[in-house]
Amino acid sequence: MTAISSITLRRARRDDVGVIVAMLADDPLGNGRERLEDPLPPSYFRAFEQVDGDPNIQLVVAEEGGRVVGCLQLCILPGISSQGASRGLIEDVRVASHCRGRGIGEQLVRWAVTEARAKGCKLVELLTHNTRVDAQRFYARLGFQPSHVGMTFRF
Amino acid sequence: MTAISSITLRRARRDDVGVIVAMLADDPLGNGRERLEDPLPPSYFRAFEQVDGDPNIQLVVAEEGGRVVGCLQLCILPGISSQGASRGLIEDVRVASHCRGRGIGEQLVRWAVTEARAKGCKLVELLTHNTRVDAQRFYARLGFQPSHVGMTFRF
Repeated sequence: MTAISSITLRRARRDDVGVIVAMLADDPLGNGRERLEDPLPPSYFRAFEQVDGDPNIQLVVAEEGGRVVGCLQLCILPGISSQGASRGLIEDVRVASHCRGRGIGEQLVRWAVTEARAKGCKLVELLTHNTRVDAQRFYARLGFQPSHVGMTFRF
Repeated sequence: MTAISSITLRRARRDDVGVIVAMLADDPLGNGRERLEDPLPPSYFRAFEQVDGDPNIQLVVAEEGGRVVGCLQLCILPGISSQGASRGLIEDVRVASHCRGRGIGEQLVRWAVTEARAKGCKLVELLTHNTRVDAQRFYARLGFQPSHVGMTFRF
Protein backbone atom coordinates (compact mmCIF):
# COMPACT_ATOMS: atom_id res chain seq x y z
CA MET A 1 0.00 0.00 0.00
CA THR A 2 2.51 2.60 1.05
CA ALA A 3 4.88 1.40 -1.68
CA ILE A 4 2.30 2.00 -4.39
CA SER A 5 1.18 5.32 -3.07
CA SER A 6 4.70 6.72 -3.10
CA ILE A 7 4.98 6.38 -6.88
CA THR A 8 4.76 9.63 -8.82
CA LEU A 9 4.13 9.80 -12.54
CA ARG A 10 5.65 12.70 -14.43
CA ARG A 11 6.71 13.66 -17.91
CA ALA A 12 10.13 12.25 -18.83
CA ARG A 13 13.09 14.65 -18.99
CA ARG A 14 16.24 14.47 -21.05
CA ASP A 15 18.24 13.26 -18.05
CA ASP A 16 15.91 10.25 -17.70
CA VAL A 17 16.94 8.83 -21.07
CA GLY A 18 19.74 6.69 -19.64
CA VAL A 19 17.57 4.93 -17.09
CA ILE A 20 14.79 4.48 -19.65
CA VAL A 21 17.23 2.81 -22.04
CA ALA A 22 18.51 0.64 -19.18
CA MET A 23 14.94 -0.57 -18.54
CA LEU A 24 14.36 -1.20 -22.25
CA ALA A 25 17.60 -3.19 -22.44
CA ASP A 26 16.85 -5.23 -19.30
CA ASP A 27 14.44 -7.45 -21.20
CA PRO A 28 14.73 -10.70 -23.17
CA LEU A 29 13.39 -9.04 -26.35
CA GLY A 30 14.93 -5.62 -25.86
CA ASN A 31 18.48 -6.45 -24.92
CA GLY A 32 19.55 -7.30 -28.47
CA ARG A 33 18.12 -4.08 -29.82
CA GLU A 34 19.57 -1.48 -27.46
CA ARG A 35 23.07 -0.11 -26.97
CA LEU A 36 23.48 0.62 -23.28
CA GLU A 37 26.82 2.42 -23.49
CA ASP A 38 28.43 5.32 -21.68
CA PRO A 39 27.94 7.79 -23.21
CA LEU A 40 24.68 6.69 -24.76
CA PRO A 41 24.50 6.75 -28.56
CA PRO A 42 23.20 10.19 -29.60
CA SER A 43 20.29 8.58 -31.49
CA TYR A 44 18.54 8.10 -28.14
CA PHE A 45 18.69 11.80 -27.35
CA ARG A 46 17.58 12.77 -30.84
CA ALA A 47 14.57 10.47 -30.40
CA PHE A 48 13.85 12.00 -27.00
CA GLU A 49 13.80 15.49 -28.51
CA GLN A 50 11.35 14.34 -31.19
CA VAL A 51 9.10 12.67 -28.62
CA ASP A 52 9.28 15.62 -26.27
CA GLY A 53 8.47 18.09 -29.03
CA ASP A 54 5.46 16.17 -30.35
CA PRO A 55 2.19 17.45 -28.90
CA ASN A 56 0.53 14.06 -29.53
CA ILE A 57 3.08 12.05 -27.57
CA GLN A 58 3.65 11.79 -23.85
CA LEU A 59 6.58 9.80 -22.52
CA VAL A 60 6.01 9.43 -18.79
CA VAL A 61 8.08 7.91 -16.04
CA ALA A 62 7.17 6.50 -12.66
CA GLU A 63 9.42 7.88 -9.95
CA GLU A 64 9.95 6.57 -6.44
CA GLY A 65 12.15 8.40 -3.97
CA GLY A 66 13.82 10.34 -6.78
CA ARG A 67 14.57 7.22 -8.85
CA VAL A 68 12.89 6.36 -12.14
CA VAL A 69 11.39 2.86 -11.88
CA GLY A 70 9.02 2.67 -14.84
CA CYS A 71 8.08 4.24 -18.15
CA LEU A 72 5.29 4.34 -20.74
CA GLN A 73 4.77 6.18 -24.00
CA LEU A 74 1.26 7.27 -25.00
CA CYS A 75 0.46 8.59 -28.49
CA ILE A 76 -2.90 10.18 -29.22
CA LEU A 77 -3.56 9.61 -32.92
CA PRO A 78 -6.27 11.36 -34.88
CA GLY A 79 -8.04 9.32 -37.54
CA ILE A 80 -11.18 9.28 -39.66
CA SER A 81 -12.62 5.95 -38.48
CA SER A 82 -15.06 5.57 -35.57
CA GLN A 83 -16.65 8.91 -36.46
CA GLY A 84 -13.35 10.70 -36.34
CA ALA A 85 -12.40 9.60 -32.84
CA SER A 86 -8.76 9.66 -31.85
CA ARG A 87 -7.03 6.48 -30.74
CA GLY A 88 -4.54 6.03 -27.97
CA LEU A 89 -1.47 3.89 -28.63
CA ILE A 90 0.51 2.62 -25.66
CA GLU A 91 4.14 1.65 -26.26
CA ASP A 92 7.35 0.91 -24.40
CA VAL A 93 5.84 0.01 -21.04
CA ARG A 94 8.59 -1.06 -18.69
CA VAL A 95 9.06 -1.43 -14.93
CA ALA A 96 12.53 -1.84 -13.40
CA SER A 97 13.05 -5.53 -12.65
CA HIS A 98 13.58 -4.98 -8.90
CA CYS A 99 10.26 -3.09 -8.65
CA ARG A 100 7.87 -5.50 -10.38
CA GLY A 101 4.74 -6.90 -8.78
CA ARG A 102 4.00 -3.72 -6.89
CA GLY A 103 1.40 -2.15 -9.15
CA ILE A 104 3.68 0.36 -10.88
CA GLY A 105 2.84 -0.91 -14.36
CA GLU A 106 -0.83 -0.84 -13.44
CA GLN A 107 -0.55 2.76 -12.31
CA LEU A 108 1.15 3.71 -15.60
CA VAL A 109 -1.39 1.92 -17.79
CA ARG A 110 -4.40 3.20 -15.84
CA TRP A 111 -3.03 6.72 -16.22
CA ALA A 112 -2.68 6.21 -19.99
CA VAL A 113 -6.24 4.88 -20.36
CA THR A 114 -7.65 7.77 -18.33
CA GLU A 115 -5.60 10.31 -20.28
CA ALA A 116 -6.64 8.84 -23.65
CA ARG A 117 -10.27 8.99 -22.63
CA ALA A 118 -9.87 12.59 -21.47
CA LYS A 119 -8.38 13.43 -24.88
CA GLY A 120 -11.47 12.07 -26.64
CA CYS A 121 -10.22 8.63 -27.65
CA LYS A 122 -12.77 5.85 -28.04
CA LEU A 123 -10.08 3.19 -28.19
CA VAL A 124 -6.69 2.48 -26.67
CA GLU A 125 -4.53 -0.09 -28.42
CA LEU A 126 -1.18 -1.77 -27.92
CA LEU A 127 0.89 -4.62 -29.26
CA THR A 128 2.47 -7.12 -26.91
CA HIS A 129 4.79 -9.84 -28.16
CA ASN A 130 3.26 -13.33 -28.42
CA THR A 131 5.78 -14.59 -25.88
CA ARG A 132 4.80 -12.02 -23.21
CA VAL A 133 2.04 -14.14 -21.71
CA ASP A 134 2.30 -12.41 -18.34
CA ALA A 135 1.86 -9.02 -20.00
CA GLN A 136 -1.21 -10.28 -21.85
CA ARG A 137 -2.73 -11.44 -18.54
CA PHE A 138 -1.84 -8.10 -16.98
CA TYR A 139 -3.54 -6.08 -19.73
CA ALA A 140 -6.59 -8.38 -19.71
CA ARG A 141 -6.95 -7.75 -15.97
CA LEU A 142 -6.99 -4.01 -16.70
CA GLY A 143 -9.81 -4.41 -19.24
CA PHE A 144 -7.95 -4.90 -22.51
CA GLN A 145 -9.24 -7.52 -24.97
CA PRO A 146 -6.91 -9.70 -27.07
CA SER A 147 -9.06 -8.76 -30.06
CA HIS A 148 -6.40 -8.29 -32.73
CA VAL A 149 -3.33 -9.86 -34.26
CA GLY A 150 -0.38 -7.49 -33.98
CA MET A 151 1.67 -7.78 -37.16
CA THR A 152 5.14 -6.37 -37.60
CA PHE A 153 7.54 -5.78 -40.46
CA ARG A 154 11.10 -5.31 -39.31
CA PHE A 155 13.77 -3.86 -41.61
CA MET B 1 -2.03 -5.76 -65.22
CA THR B 2 -3.35 -2.59 -66.78
CA ALA B 3 -5.85 -2.22 -63.96
CA ILE B 4 -3.13 -2.19 -61.32
CA SER B 5 -0.90 0.18 -63.19
CA SER B 6 -3.68 2.77 -63.51
CA ILE B 7 -3.94 3.23 -59.74
CA THR B 8 -2.48 6.46 -58.42
CA LEU B 9 -1.70 7.04 -54.75
CA ARG B 10 -2.00 10.57 -53.44
CA ARG B 11 -2.54 12.43 -50.21
CA ALA B 12 -6.21 12.55 -49.17
CA ARG B 13 -8.07 15.85 -49.53
CA ARG B 14 -11.01 17.17 -47.59
CA ASP B 15 -13.43 16.26 -50.38
CA ASP B 16 -12.34 12.60 -50.14
CA VAL B 17 -13.71 12.27 -46.60
CA GLY B 18 -17.13 11.06 -47.72
CA VAL B 19 -15.84 8.22 -49.85
CA ILE B 20 -13.31 7.26 -47.16
CA VAL B 21 -16.11 7.03 -44.59
CA ALA B 22 -18.18 4.99 -47.06
CA MET B 23 -15.32 2.48 -47.37
CA LEU B 24 -14.86 2.35 -43.60
CA ALA B 25 -18.61 1.73 -43.16
CA ASP B 26 -18.74 -0.97 -45.84
CA ASP B 27 -17.22 -3.53 -43.53
CA PRO B 28 -18.61 -6.05 -41.04
CA LEU B 29 -16.65 -4.47 -38.18
CA GLY B 30 -16.86 -0.85 -39.29
CA ASN B 31 -20.51 -0.49 -40.17
CA GLY B 32 -21.69 -0.29 -36.57
CA ARG B 33 -19.13 2.39 -35.78
CA GLU B 34 -19.63 4.88 -38.59
CA ARG B 35 -22.42 7.32 -39.44
CA LEU B 36 -22.66 7.49 -43.20
CA GLU B 37 -25.13 10.38 -43.41
CA ASP B 38 -25.63 13.31 -45.75
CA PRO B 39 -24.24 15.68 -44.67
CA LEU B 40 -21.55 13.75 -42.85
CA PRO B 41 -21.25 14.41 -39.12
CA PRO B 42 -18.74 17.26 -38.66
CA SER B 43 -16.56 15.09 -36.41
CA TYR B 44 -15.22 13.41 -39.56
CA PHE B 45 -14.05 16.72 -41.00
CA ARG B 46 -12.54 17.81 -37.69
CA ALA B 47 -10.59 14.54 -37.64
CA PHE B 48 -9.47 15.09 -41.23
CA GLU B 49 -8.12 18.54 -40.34
CA GLN B 50 -6.18 17.06 -37.43
CA VAL B 51 -4.77 14.27 -39.60
CA ASP B 52 -3.95 16.63 -42.43
CA GLY B 53 -2.19 19.08 -40.12
CA ASP B 54 -0.06 16.47 -38.38
CA PRO B 55 3.41 16.21 -39.92
CA ASN B 56 3.75 12.62 -38.65
CA ILE B 57 0.59 11.35 -40.32
CA GLN B 58 -0.16 10.66 -43.96
CA LEU B 59 -3.65 9.67 -45.01
CA VAL B 60 -3.37 8.48 -48.59
CA VAL B 61 -5.96 7.35 -51.09
CA ALA B 62 -5.73 5.14 -54.16
CA GLU B 63 -7.41 6.74 -57.14
CA GLU B 64 -8.50 5.12 -60.37
CA GLY B 65 -9.98 7.14 -63.20
CA GLY B 66 -10.73 10.01 -60.83
CA ARG B 67 -12.47 7.80 -58.25
CA VAL B 68 -11.12 6.98 -54.82
CA VAL B 69 -11.00 3.19 -54.42
CA GLY B 70 -8.76 2.69 -51.40
CA CYS B 71 -7.19 4.35 -48.37
CA LEU B 72 -4.48 3.89 -45.77
CA GLN B 73 -3.21 5.96 -42.86
CA LEU B 74 0.48 5.87 -41.95
CA CYS B 75 1.81 7.39 -38.73
CA ILE B 76 5.55 7.78 -38.17
CA LEU B 77 6.08 7.66 -34.42
CA PRO B 78 9.30 8.62 -32.71
CA GLY B 79 10.30 6.58 -29.67
CA ILE B 80 13.29 5.77 -27.48
CA SER B 81 13.38 2.00 -28.01
CA SER B 82 15.43 0.26 -30.71
CA GLN B 83 18.15 2.91 -30.37
CA GLY B 84 15.71 5.72 -30.91
CA ALA B 85 14.31 4.43 -34.19
CA SER B 86 10.91 5.63 -35.31
CA ARG B 87 8.10 3.16 -35.89
CA GLY B 88 5.53 3.17 -38.63
CA LEU B 89 1.93 2.41 -37.70
CA ILE B 90 -0.49 1.46 -40.47
CA GLU B 91 -4.19 1.98 -39.83
CA ASP B 92 -7.51 2.13 -41.63
CA VAL B 93 -6.56 0.18 -44.73
CA ARG B 94 -9.61 -0.24 -46.94
CA VAL B 95 -10.27 -1.05 -50.58
CA ALA B 96 -13.70 -0.43 -52.12
CA SER B 97 -15.55 -3.76 -52.22
CA HIS B 98 -15.97 -3.73 -56.01
CA CYS B 99 -12.21 -3.25 -56.51
CA ARG B 100 -10.78 -6.00 -54.32
CA GLY B 101 -8.43 -8.69 -55.53
CA ARG B 102 -6.66 -6.38 -57.95
CA GLY B 103 -3.60 -5.47 -55.92
CA ILE B 104 -4.75 -2.05 -54.71
CA GLY B 105 -4.31 -2.91 -51.03
CA GLU B 106 -0.89 -4.33 -51.83
CA GLN B 107 0.11 -1.13 -53.59
CA LEU B 108 -1.02 0.92 -50.58
CA VAL B 109 0.78 -1.24 -48.02
CA ARG B 110 3.98 -1.49 -50.05
CA TRP B 111 3.98 2.29 -50.35
CA ALA B 112 3.59 2.60 -46.56
CA VAL B 113 6.44 0.17 -45.85
CA THR B 114 8.73 1.95 -48.31
CA GLU B 115 7.79 5.36 -46.91
CA ALA B 116 8.33 4.22 -43.30
CA ARG B 117 11.76 2.88 -44.22
CA ALA B 118 12.63 6.12 -46.00
CA LYS B 119 11.66 8.00 -42.85
CA GLY B 120 14.11 5.96 -40.78
CA CYS B 121 11.75 3.43 -39.22
CA LYS B 122 13.15 0.05 -38.25
CA LEU B 123 9.68 -1.40 -37.74
CA VAL B 124 6.22 -1.10 -39.21
CA GLU B 125 3.33 -2.37 -37.12
CA LEU B 126 -0.42 -2.79 -37.42
CA LEU B 127 -3.32 -4.42 -35.67
CA THR B 128 -5.77 -6.55 -37.60
CA HIS B 129 -8.88 -8.00 -35.97
CA ASN B 130 -8.71 -11.69 -35.05
CA THR B 131 -11.60 -12.38 -37.42
CA ARG B 132 -9.83 -10.85 -40.46
CA VAL B 133 -8.08 -14.03 -41.47
CA ASP B 134 -7.80 -12.96 -45.12
CA ALA B 135 -6.12 -9.71 -44.04
CA GLN B 136 -3.65 -11.65 -41.92
CA ARG B 137 -2.74 -13.84 -44.91
CA PHE B 138 -2.44 -10.73 -47.06
CA TYR B 139 -0.03 -9.02 -44.65
CA ALA B 140 1.97 -12.22 -44.17
CA ARG B 141 2.41 -12.42 -47.94
CA LEU B 142 3.82 -8.88 -47.88
CA GLY B 143 6.38 -9.81 -45.22
CA PHE B 144 4.60 -9.03 -41.95
CA GLN B 145 4.93 -11.46 -39.06
CA PRO B 146 2.04 -12.25 -36.67
CA SER B 147 4.49 -11.65 -33.84
CA HIS B 148 2.27 -9.80 -31.38
CA VAL B 149 -1.10 -9.86 -29.69
CA GLY B 150 -3.02 -6.68 -30.47
CA MET B 151 -4.92 -5.65 -27.36
CA THR B 152 -7.64 -3.02 -27.30
CA PHE B 153 -9.57 -1.12 -24.66
CA ARG B 154 -12.77 0.39 -26.03
CA PHE B 155 -14.66 3.07 -24.09
